[in-house]
Amino acid sequence: MDHIKLPQDLKSLSFRQLDALCAEIRNVLIHTVSKTGGHLSSNLGVVELTVALHKTFHPPCDKIVWDVGHQTYTHKILTGRKNKMNTLRQKGGISGFPKPAESPYDAFVAGHSSTSISVAAGLARAKTLNHEPGFSIAVIGDGAFTGGMAYEALNNAGHYKDRIIVVLNDNEMSISKNVGAFARYLAQIRSKPEYYSTRNQIRKLISAVPLVGKPLAKLASDSKSYLKEMLYHSNLFEDFGFEYVGPVDGHDLESLCDAFERAKASNGPVLVHVDTVKGKGYSFAEKQPDAYHGVPQFNAQLGSCENRPQDFSAVFGSWIAEAAEKDSKICAVTAAMKDGTGLEEFAVRFPERFYDVGIAEPHAATFCAGLSAGGFRPVFAVYSTFLQRAYDQVMQDMAIANEHVVLAVDRAGIVGEDGETHQGVFDISFLSSIPGMTILSPATYPELRACLDRAVYRCNGPVAVRYPKGREKAFPAGLHGNEKFQISEDADILLVSYGRIAVSCCQAAELLKQRGVRVGVLKLTQLLPYCEELLPMLLKKKSIFFVEESSEQGSIAQMTGNLLLKNGYQGRYFVRAIPNRFLAQASVDEIFEELGWTPQQLAAWVEEAIR
Amino acid sequence: MDHIKLPQDLKSLSFRQLDALCAEIRNVLIHTVSKTGGHLSSNLGVVELTVALHKTFHPPCDKIVWDVGHQTYTHKILTGRKNKMNTLRQKGGISGFPKPAESPYDAFVAGHSSTSISVAAGLARAKTLNHEPGFSIAVIGDGAFTGGMAYEALNNAGHYKDRIIVVLNDNEMSISKNVGAFARYLAQIRSKPEYYSTRNQIRKLISAVPLVGKPLAKLASDSKSYLKEMLYHSNLFEDFGFEYVGPVDGHDLESLCDAFERAKASNGPVLVHVDTVKGKGYSFAEKQPDAYHGVPQFNAQLGSCENRPQDFSAVFGSWIAEAAEKDSKICAVTAAMKDGTGLEEFAVRFPERFYDVGIAEPHAATFCAGLSAGGFRPVFAVYSTFLQRAYDQVMQDMAIANEHVVLAVDRAGIVGEDGETHQGVFDISFLSSIPGMTILSPATYPELRACLDRAVYRCNGPVAVRYPKGREKAFPAGLHGNEKFQISEDADILLVSYGRIAVSCCQAAELLKQRGVRVGVLKLTQLLPYCEELLPMLLKKKSIFFVEESSEQGSIAQMTGNLLLKNGYQGRYFVRAIPNRFLAQASVDEIFEELGWTPQQLAAWVEEAIR
Repeated sequence: MDHIKLPQDLKSLSFRQLDALCAEIRNVLIHTVSKTGGHLSSNLGVVELTVALHKTFHPPCDKIVWDVGHQTYTHKILTGRKNKMNTLRQKGGISGFPKPAESPYDAFVAGHSSTSISVAAGLARAKTLNHEPGFSIAVIGDGAFTGGMAYEALNNAGHYKDRIIVVLNDNEMSISKNVGAFARYLAQIRSKPEYYSTRNQIRKLISAVPLVGKPLAKLASDSKSYLKEMLYHSNLFEDFGFEYVGPVDGHDLESLCDAFERAKASNGPVLVHVDTVKGKGYSFAEKQPDAYHGVPQFNAQLGSCENRPQDFSAVFGSWIAEAAEKDSKICAVTAAMKDGTGLEEFAVRFPERFYDVGIAEPHAATFCAGLSAGGFRPVFAVYSTFLQRAYDQVMQDMAIANEHVVLAVDRAGIVGEDGETHQGVFDISFLSSIPGMTILSPATYPELRACLDRAVYRCNGPVAVRYPKGREKAFPAGLHGNEKFQISEDADILLVSYGRIAVSCCQAAELLKQRGVRVGVLKLTQLLPYCEELLPMLLKKKSIFFVEESSEQGSIAQMTGNLLLKNGYQGRYFVRAIPNRFLAQASVDEIFEELGWTPQQLAAWVEEAIR
Repeated sequence: MDHIKLPQDLKSLSFRQLDALCAEIRNVLIHTVSKTGGHLSSNLGVVELTVALHKTFHPPCDKIVWDVGHQTYTHKILTGRKNKMNTLRQKGGISGFPKPAESPYDAFVAGHSSTSISVAAGLARAKTLNHEPGFSIAVIGDGAFTGGMAYEALNNAGHYKDRIIVVLNDNEMSISKNVGAFARYLAQIRSKPEYYSTRNQIRKLISAVPLVGKPLAKLASDSKSYLKEMLYHSNLFEDFGFEYVGPVDGHDLESLCDAFERAKASNGPVLVHVDTVKGKGYSFAEKQPDAYHGVPQFNAQLGSCENRPQDFSAVFGSWIAEAAEKDSKICAVTAAMKDGTGLEEFAVRFPERFYDVGIAEPHAATFCAGLSAGGFRPVFAVYSTFLQRAYDQVMQDMAIANEHVVLAVDRAGIVGEDGETHQGVFDISFLSSIPGMTILSPATYPELRACLDRAVYRCNGPVAVRYPKGREKAFPAGLHGNEKFQISEDADILLVSYGRIAVSCCQAAELLKQRGVRVGVLKLTQLLPYCEELLPMLLKKKSIFFVEESSEQGSIAQMTGNLLLKNGYQGRYFVRAIPNRFLAQASVDEIFEELGWTPQQLAAWVEEAIR
């Protein structure tokens, strides 16, 4: 492995040497991820696939576009970043996703699913128009194929004759077991590899046969063409205008390279169907690929046996299982995030009312609206960053339709190591623009449960209950109020906030108190509808400091500033939210500090402002 | 037709009587739309389809979910709204789209494309869980089938055994000619109706044949199963778990009813493929279905021969054709809105660089990002309301990836008669939350051209140039400034605005001047990045009145209010934007008046406030 500085160094190696290289890479992957945390199973599954791609193609002239992008560790190792693997997903280190700023071999940013064919279609079109050589290659999992964008892109790309190659990395999983009719369809193909390789033979034969057997002859002269028609269009990908190659054993380098060479020799769009095993080569991960999808640090020898910690997702999970026990109208919907959102228990206990729809947030949202129209109480558990994909559906099919759907918005706020593409800091902005939205933001486990109860039984239309990744923070005593907001002592200076960052505000107030500065704390729980009843109290304050773990544009702080001014507020107003930029990878604590959100920083900010 | 009060009245009629009814309905449709404006071609295409649905099924127990929903006029006539057709799309009248508040026969809201299967899947699931009888029927066009949500829903619905029926209304069109590999695929099926009806026979035979002809016998014992496999999975819809019925002549009532009866007799999900002719029965519309897709009032005898008026879309269209002439890197992308966005000329002159990707906004956005990464200058022309669907793609694949894509955001602002689902009043809110976005808002044709030039050649990352439906308004003289903003005379009181509503502000200022009140007008053109250089001037004003044709939450007015307050503004601040609700159908002028935006209303508002 030490000899491989760049992908071209692979070209001269024999398959035997490459096999040895793959084994070395696997060790690095397991070792690295056990130290840094990250995505393990998906990376172990594509070692040979990645080596074969770099052996056969010539990036960066050929563009490899990785879908979702969390499976690019081998790619990073092969493209000059081997020695930086120990900085993976850390502040200032290399990203866990492709990042063109990091390397010319990273053809495009990725983070959200099902976009690679669209990107590759654009790149391929550009090459054709420019008369440039080279291929545009989308590497996309069967899970990502459940996202509608993949079909939109197939439909569009299948139309041109550009040199686009779609590599379908079929591991029968998205993050957990893949679902839906398409997964069943792929299983059929996989189960009959000979069928697909024999098919070409059959085709040739059929066209040469004047009458295909006596009984068929009854159907007279047309039979032949019917049959031909059937044989020529028996594959979904071919229906979309792609030549189909596969299925190929995704852990056999020779077969892989052979298949890619066949794809290169074609004239138009090609789909190469590759079978891989998620977690390949690490027994713990092979047995439990979803448990090793995204992992924190672990002991590589013993595997990561730690039980799931109590966190917001787990609390949501146990709440919804309890709720469903009592109420047969509760349904749970997820877009391939059963484990991440804490729905394992629900899925086992109420399979009839559990719907994993694939990586298909738009459908998930509208499907929920349909369930609601049918008299049910659907809860869509979804990460904040992925809910962005269903913005229009929440507006049109929930809000305009006035359907009562609860959005359990997990990973709301800063998520840390996954970086720019995954921060959940926009949901306030985009949800608040939707008329009639209710947004609740609990800060603790008991509040989460209370908010969920309220969302399901005492709200109308779409309701978002948003909570962060990880665990609750201990809340200082001394706040009193109701389900909408809580407030501490009365003072001329007020710190306003919500969610977990309200804890920092309380601690800052305590620090300030010690320094002789009396500061009140207002913690909101109901963000929308806006608590207008607070306005008279706010208008009396000398200084208001709003701290918000959200993009400032479209935030509650901004809404409050605007409202205060319109109502003639005469005091001073300060906001510390997320400025107009994307937040790079770092731990949550590091990002909090970067943004000036530690209790010490907040206290210093207030002190300086009022001095 | 006078005998048909409700759908059940159809049940006793003969096919001959129903044919006569269809002819009557067609007359009503042509007459109505010629008076009210609206969608004509699509409605003429589904007269028999709608009658057959109501003859065969039993709504409202059976749920008919209309995709997009602009083809429901016949449905409205048959479900008790015949006498209200003259109020179609008018303030207080019946909607041009399904609206459950209007009738129990309207199973769900629609307006945006490709959602019906998701809704029907939810409704079907609810029926199954409730052990309720009845069918959930999605009526969806081949155009809407190019939207990825349709596949997400097929993938999910094909998984259950619910009583869902998807009626594919295949007219070879979305709004203009349908595009992509899927359209080609449907054309293949349509061209061989006998093939599909004979297929069942062949299947039966094949399974009974021990050896299918001598040459095939070479492939020995496995041949039979290979062949069977091929025969059983030769249709894309079947691949997704749907039974396929069709293709059926969509203008033959008997065939339609027969197909629907077959669908009812099945056990699981069924897709009925219906061939229809858009514009059927009105020669002008049959010849030019896209010209009669959405029309203003017209002369029913002579057809709507009016030439396309000069409007913002047309100005954009001629600008981009000129730009492409000079610059071979300019590409135009549309999601099935070639005509609406003014791209006809570009499409004819630069077919190699014109991409109609189907009703697939998410793919369109990411495809543009790919084109940009490949060195091109893509312009995505899209209606404001439909851009909502690509929120995540604009953020992830344009903004994070820092790809330079121009969004030509047409129909920004109030659109009028299409109502709640189509108002373009959220783009400021959702686009402004995306870090790094540039938003330009021209008010006149010359400004539109200047903004587009600037967007293409002097901006980075994603840039939105937004402009309204319809024509420019004459701008009063007296403003001076630069490409970012323009301002009139200096005064203590300032009216701030942008876009066409700035004209009302200028007129209001003129009215106030006549009444002795001096008011300045600031018209913004660059909304984001925010023109910070204006702040010192704004901070000196006694009163600022911000008028904005946008949802207030997330608006520029709100951003300004917040900024002013944070910077210690001591004056008074007033905002007149769109409150937190959806705006129902009415003419643009009526809605302006409803919101207090006429020059007279604005003048009165200012006068009262400063009194």
